[in-house]
Amino acid sequence: MSSIHEECGIFGIRTREKRSLAHIIAQGLTALQHRGQEAAGIAVNTDRTISYHKGLGLVHEVFTPRELEDLGSGEIGVGHVRYSTSGTNTVANAQPMVVKHVKGQLAVCHNGNLTNSYELRRALELEGCIFHTTSDTEVISYLITRKRLKTSSIEDAVREAVQEIHGAFSLILMSPTKLIACRDRYGIRPLCLGETPEGDTVFASESCALDAVGARLIRELKPGEMVIADPEGRRSEFCFEQQKEALCVFEYIYFARPDSVIRGNSVHEARKTAGAYLAMDHPVPADVVIGVPDSGLDAALGYSLESGIPYGIGLIKNKYIGRTFIAPSQDERDHLVRLKLNAVESEVKDKRVILIDDSIVRGTTSSYIVSLIREAGAREVHLRISSPPFLHPCYYGTDVDSGNSLIACGHSVSDVARITGADSLAFLSVERALSLCPGYGKDSFCAACFDGTYPEKKPVVADKERFEIPS
Amino acid sequence: MSSIHEECGIFGIRTREKRSLAHIIAQGLTALQHRGQEAAGIAVNTDRTISYHKGLGLVHEVFTPRELEDLGSGEIGVGHVRYSTSGTNTVANAQPMVVKHVKGQLAVCHNGNLTNSYELRRALELEGCIFHTTSDTEVISYLITRKRLKTSSIEDAVREAVQEIHGAFSLILMSPTKLIACRDRYGIRPLCLGETPEGDTVFASESCALDAVGARLIRELKPGEMVIADPEGRRSEFCFEQQKEALCVFEYIYFARPDSVIRGNSVHEARKTAGAYLAMDHPVPADVVIGVPDSGLDAALGYSLESGIPYGIGLIKNKYIGRTFIAPSQDERDHLVRLKLNAVESEVKDKRVILIDDSIVRGTTSSYIVSLIREAGAREVHLRISSPPFLHPCYYGTDVDSGNSLIACGHSVSDVARITGADSLAFLSVERALSLCPGYGKDSFCAACFDGTYPEKKPVVADKERFEIPS
Amino acid sequence: MSSIHEECGIFGIRTREKRSLAHIIAQGLTALQHRGQEAAGIAVNTDRTISYHKGLGLVHEVFTPRELEDLGSGEIGVGHVRYSTSGTNTVANAQPMVVKHVKGQLAVCHNGNLTNSYELRRALELEGCIFHTTSDTEVISYLITRKRLKTSSIEDAVREAVQEIHGAFSLILMSPTKLIACRDRYGIRPLCLGETPEGDTVFASESCALDAVGARLIRELKPGEMVIADPEGRRSEFCFEQQKEALCVFEYIYFARPDSVIRGNSVHEARKTAGAYLAMDHPVPADVVIGVPDSGLDAALGYSLESGIPYGIGLIKNKYIGRTFIAPSQDERDHLVRLKLNAVESEVKDKRVILIDDSIVRGTTSSYIVSLIREAGAREVHLRISSPPFLHPCYYGTDVDSGNSLIACGHSVSDVARITGADSLAFLSVERALSLCPGYGKDSFCAACFDGTYPEKKPVVADKERFEIPS
Amino acid sequence: MSSIHEECGIFGIRTREKRSLAHIIAQGLTALQHRGQEAAGIAVNTDRTISYHKGLGLVHEVFTPRELEDLGSGEIGVGHVRYSTSGTNTVANAQPMVVKHVKGQLAVCHNGNLTNSYELRRALELEGCIFHTTSDTEVISYLITRKRLKTSSIEDAVREAVQEIHGAFSLILMSPTKLIACRDRYGIRPLCLGETPEGDTVFASESCALDAVGARLIRELKPGEMVIADPEGRRSEFCFEQQKEALCVFEYIYFARPDSVIRGNSVHEARKTAGAYLAMDHPVPADVVIGVPDSGLDAALGYSLESGIPYGIGLIKNKYIGRTFIAPSQDERDHLVRLKLNAVESEVKDKRVILIDDSIVRGTTSSYIVSLIREAGAREVHLRISSPPFLHPCYYGTDVDSGNSLIACGHSVSDVARITGADSLAFLSVERALSLCPGYGKDSFCAACFDGTYPEKKPVVADKERFEIPS
Repeated sequence: MSSIHEECGIFGIRTREKRSLAHIIAQGLTALQHRGQEAAGIAVNTDRTISYHKGLGLVHEVFTPRELEDLGSGEIGVGHVRYSTSGTNTVANAQPMVVKHVKGQLAVCHNGNLTNSYELRRALELEGCIFHTTSDTEVISYLITRKRLKTSSIEDAVREAVQEIHGAFSLILMSPTKLIACRDRYGIRPLCLGETPEGDTVFASESCALDAVGARLIRELKPGEMVIADPEGRRSEFCFEQQKEALCVFEYIYFARPDSVIRGNSVHEARKTAGAYLAMDHPVPADVVIGVPDSGLDAALGYSLESGIPYGIGLIKNKYIGRTFIAPSQDERDHLVRLKLNAVESEVKDKRVILIDDSIVRGTTSSYIVSLIREAGAREVHLRISSPPFLHPCYYGTDVDSGNSLIACGHSVSDVARITGADSLAFLSVERALSLCPGYGKDSFCAACFDGTYPEKKPVVADKERFEIPS
Repeated sequence: MSSIHEECGIFGIRTREKRSLAHIIAQGLTALQHRGQEAAGIAVNTDRTISYHKGLGLVHEVFTPRELEDLGSGEIGVGHVRYSTSGTNTVANAQPMVVKHVKGQLAVCHNGNLTNSYELRRALELEGCIFHTTSDTEVISYLITRKRLKTSSIEDAVREAVQEIHGAFSLILMSPTKLIACRDRYGIRPLCLGETPEGDTVFASESCALDAVGARLIRELKPGEMVIADPEGRRSEFCFEQQKEALCVFEYIYFARPDSVIRGNSVHEARKTAGAYLAMDHPVPADVVIGVPDSGLDAALGYSLESGIPYGIGLIKNKYIGRTFIAPSQDERDHLVRLKLNAVESEVKDKRVILIDDSIVRGTTSSYIVSLIREAGAREVHLRISSPPFLHPCYYGTDVDSGNSLIACGHSVSDVARITGADSLAFLSVERALSLCPGYGKDSFCAACFDGTYPEKKPVVADKERFEIPS
Repeated sequence: MSSIHEECGIFGIRTREKRSLAHIIAQGLTALQHRGQEAAGIAVNTDRTISYHKGLGLVHEVFTPRELEDLGSGEIGVGHVRYSTSGTNTVANAQPMVVKHVKGQLAVCHNGNLTNSYELRRALELEGCIFHTTSDTEVISYLITRKRLKTSSIEDAVREAVQEIHGAFSLILMSPTKLIACRDRYGIRPLCLGETPEGDTVFASESCALDAVGARLIRELKPGEMVIADPEGRRSEFCFEQQKEALCVFEYIYFARPDSVIRGNSVHEARKTAGAYLAMDHPVPADVVIGVPDSGLDAALGYSLESGIPYGIGLIKNKYIGRTFIAPSQDERDHLVRLKLNAVESEVKDKRVILIDDSIVRGTTSSYIVSLIREAGAREVHLRISSPPFLHPCYYGTDVDSGNSLIACGHSVSDVARITGADSLAFLSVERALSLCPGYGKDSFCAACFDGTYPEKKPVVADKERFEIPS
Repeated sequence: MSSIHEECGIFGIRTREKRSLAHIIAQGLTALQHRGQEAAGIAVNTDRTISYHKGLGLVHEVFTPRELEDLGSGEIGVGHVRYSTSGTNTVANAQPMVVKHVKGQLAVCHNGNLTNSYELRRALELEGCIFHTTSDTEVISYLITRKRLKTSSIEDAVREAVQEIHGAFSLILMSPTKLIACRDRYGIRPLCLGETPEGDTVFASESCALDAVGARLIRELKPGEMVIADPEGRRSEFCFEQQKEALCVFEYIYFARPDSVIRGNSVHEARKTAGAYLAMDHPVPADVVIGVPDSGLDAALGYSLESGIPYGIGLIKNKYIGRTFIAPSQDERDHLVRLKLNAVESEVKDKRVILIDDSIVRGTTSSYIVSLIREAGAREVHLRISSPPFLHPCYYGTDVDSGNSLIACGHSVSDVARITGADSLAFLSVERALSLCPGYGKDSFCAACFDGTYPEKKPVVADKERFEIPS
């Protein structure tokens, strides 16, 4: 509710022999489910014909054993999990997007967000294109299709097409014979390459999805890189004259799973480091360090190890809360959060507590958790946030919005401390955030939501407006 | 199973004041449900924004009260029921097709089948178009969109677009401000115009849908006619230089509901006339005339009235048979047909029975019914069919297929009589079929499935191939 | 809505060899679906262990192929379809009721209604019994169980148990080894015995269910008769000193399917006879005789044959109306009935119409149909009802209620004619109703809802009160 | 799969004013969901009439907002979550069990397992009782009902009834006017009493459910105690001459939620203590202590704090795995466990790892986790189990089965170490397990599954046989 969401997780596989791919893809997507819980889809290429199924809900809700069975066996397959704001017709926006163009079928999975999609869509419409969805993926499909008319291969078409788009995109595409993965020129969203013991090629947003299907992480795709897996094997090329990297730093801080490895660095370790930095920069005498489950636990451990203050398990999360409980009234919403998190009284009572969370968005959840800890008897609650304050909108595929809904905009840190009810509050500095990944400098990240420095020019027509359909 | 299916029923309404249109459209579609039971969809235009919902199943299965409620109030709305062969991804093919193009949204409902859609689709693909579906409706949407780029109104675009398509189409379209209905140059599929007591405009495939929503039949659209209902009122124009009419004669014989009126003639009366012709042309001494429910009843009544042989109710149809009973094995399929129809022994025992059915496709159902009547004790069973034998494929939106699955192809009438087990068999002659509608001559019908005379040149790439997607 | 409902259809089968019984029972129940559409259940005895599944809805909704499969193979099985007023917890009331008692499991299917169940239930409660349902079937199960403690066989227990109950009951029971059918002392509800070509024993409420499973009607059970099918074969005995028969006459008029045979007489013929009697007793000059589908058609045919006035098909029923359309407001309810029935204008316009319906309950539906015929242009509408007026409540398993909701109570026939808007109105006389079945005299029927003469004393605590649970 | 399950969680509430109780009960049950995930049910008493709804699945699956709404407002309500082996008819076994007896309705929720239910059930059957379910709860309902015939109040009936049953039971019952909670003479299963700020009485299996509904823990019910909440207030009495306590020690070790408080002691602290004991009794040089999520984390923290070896987050659990993934083949089952848990390589690579889990049942999961840690690069893996080995079956409501499926039966600790692949293995001693709760001696626990000392005589007909229904 009041946390930040990314829009997608993507997965693709090419096997040497025809297999029941849908089951494997469903496993990969389940490992990426934290990146999107609103819709899921799988497309399987059986003898050059693509079948697909997609729907709203978690992977295991959309795909019953029967649906997995029905997709049949194949040699290439792709899948997608999506976070999206609810509303009518969202199934239409679910991915993979499977279309038929002049050279056959094409299935497209996209993680990210284009910054010039309004302009591209407008230009396409002026040439007579029709759009069934409000998704960037349809724009990308059109661009590839149009390039394909004038190129001799799908990979040439993809290369030329992506050169026209701006913003963040990690793509996995499937043509009748090829599986192609491609990353934007800045490498904003992650995308990695793995291989199964049988030699099958796997692409996934994060390495944890490779683990889930028994594949080995080979490496991540480089910014601007395209990898093609076809019957002849696997080859790589670059779509852009190389530019500076700009990996979303929030992948390390929040989006990715702790057991994933990005740029050779463990996400868990990066978060522990964030906690350690907080301990160095914002120490406070205390009796216990408590992380907000699940994403605050790693940083809490890092804070504890650096400060020597014991780590405690002070908050228990109820994992059985379903969407049907999402309650309309504020009163019921309070009940809901009480249902979701509960304090372990013995761990905090009469203690000075350092509470570690990954971020503050609107401040309401933080306030609730601070009061929960206090009601359980804590003498002091010192809030430490393992990311800098959100001050600028993100245009690259997360829902970090424009300033007015972000508590850090227009409030000083001490204001926010007061609002949340914490005895003290400190954020990780941007400087520190950009040092979380050993071997990679500050220039290799996008931290625009924290510092306002965007890798590219900002979109003319921004996200929210773009999705409205003028009549 | 072994009966003939049409592909669609369509409905549209434009009201003077904003109303809960989805409920009205659902009623209209329910009255058209006999034209398609596989999928249903409704789109409502609320303040120039189109919302829609569609799904697989009957209207009342796809639209729960909640879904109808969610579509909200509006001033224009359209709906569609569809028959289609089952398979993956059929929801994508369900209508209305709602797309966004350069001038806003467009919702398209189509009943019929294009004969040049392969060529049109190919040409569009060569210009960079992508297709999400295998439906003709998407081709039509593209054509309108492209014409719209160069015309000053949606109706101009529709007119120019339909001039490029061949085959059968009755269309109902909704733009942000207009409701448009249009019929192909031959008027192959029916389409009528009605008005509610409040003065609202209604379009529907058949007049029974007007009755269902309390509207009055004004008239049918003429072949090639387009009627536009916009805030200024209702106006008509023609899209083609007038050509000869070619209404599908099987609409009278089988597709339409008996309480519908087409060309000012009652469908029920036309069927009674067919029965009477059979009595004149193929008399036989008998004790009772039995119609196969439901579509053989009207002709049976006509036969009885003409011949003086009493009408009987000799077959009872079970109306509670659901699709879940559709059984895989032949043995179970026999059970199914036994479940569906049962003989009334007292009505046929020791009698000479004239059995009236609307058509024979593969002959298996007819064989079963003849044996059912015999097992109930009939002394003789004389089968009379109120249509001519199917000998040629239909390219205009029904599933009358190429010859090899039609029993009448390659079998003489006496062969078919023997196969079905009837003591005698006779079909309505083509001549008679083309005289069912007083005031309309033979030239005003398409009876191509019976006589092989098509109103237009046959498609180069026929139906079945068209739907395959070459890679 | 405003028609009369019976409460149940029952079915049982015992085979010589283990078979997939659930499919067969589902077919039998589907043929009995007209007797109850609210709930369905099947129990199968596999090697002396009974499995069951039941749920709310039509047979094909409750039983997917998977559920049928899951019930497995067996040698004995029973099934039930139920009409019941909606409300919470109705699944608990669905049948078969499967219980475990001292001698093993017992599955009970019941059609009818007890008149002393309040007293029996009270007495059982005073002995420490607990009730999970509000159904008479649980009372019957208890009685059988208690008798079984003191008898040496299940059939002895059943015989002694049914001697204590009053009212209407046709029962089919399954013990670990036996299939037993039993009918109350008056034979109020029908129950027949059939045999498949393989020699399997089948019991069913009506013979149309025997036809549906390929079984031959052997005979009906006599009033008070019990038939036991066990591994040794089939045998019969009587539970009561024989009393006079009192078959519900409304089974002939309305409940049973026209293709069923009761007492050796075709239901269809009985209805034709009712129509003929109406023509004799209440003639009127007219141009066409129209039956209200489906249950008025047979009597309309009889009226036509007797009077010489042509039979017409003047009303078309939409068979695709689902329960989700059941609308809360009166306005929407009117729409619904308009959706359900439509007039065939050509058949009634400018004509004097005789309209035949099977009964009048509250009068609202009749009014609507009369106005429908008039709006379609009929010059006169003469309503003829193929049953006498309802004047007394039914205590034997139908929902013919106490007087205040029945239009015939407190209104003269001419009043009712005026209310319905008919030019004339006549009912079948009770005398005639009791002569519908050749070979069976007036004393062999229960016509209490028409003439107030009950075969047994009326219940002390009547239906509606009985179902309330005092605290 | 290979973990131990308890059978139930129970909840009850009595308010001073009529409220929408179903929502509150659903929240309480959601907080108890860890105690049973197979079925859920809620019963609400509205003006002395009890409505209920129950179904298979999680609370939020069984109870949509609409179902909660439909249960209406009331002053008393109860709820139940259940773990049960799957199979047919499990809905029938779901609770609350709502029955009608001589004094009105009764709703019963039960957590535990009777040891003399076979004898009780047999005796009841011999008196003519019928059973709809295979659940102990129906036996209890009968006993109460029969006692109620001879007593003047429901509480007297409950007291006399529970004196006849043996085994473990925590009960919450609702009569038309009273809410009653009762615990067996040994207090084997937990049950606590709370109060909301408005003064409403709440009963729940664990205190975490009180927290979830905003109630304050007052105290636990004492062994053998019965608390009655009726319009006059709340009062307590004892059903048995006091006997020694025998709380299931595994509630502390595994079943209860860490944020619950039992006997005034935090479950989290008890588990930390278990970890500390393991560190004292079974030390080993190592670099990191890793808990198996979720139930091994608390003990891992205790081990770390006691030993000084750093606590690490070395295993990540995927919380999005649904039941539909439950795979038939062994191969797929392996995939499933790989999907469920993944190692954090950076935390274990090249390290000596102490791995803490709560128990070992069949050994297969432990083997998998050890190999997972090893494959991630651990140099050594020392497995420490925070409970003693399972050696004896549990008859009190868990699925700790007879010896042959328990790895510790017939294998020495070193055997088990070898089988799981650990470098060393140690269990918590029974002695230590019985010292986890300060202020409560060894005699106050049941640890029969570890030491074979049962508080009562063992059942004559044990669990598995009891559930079979002899014919």
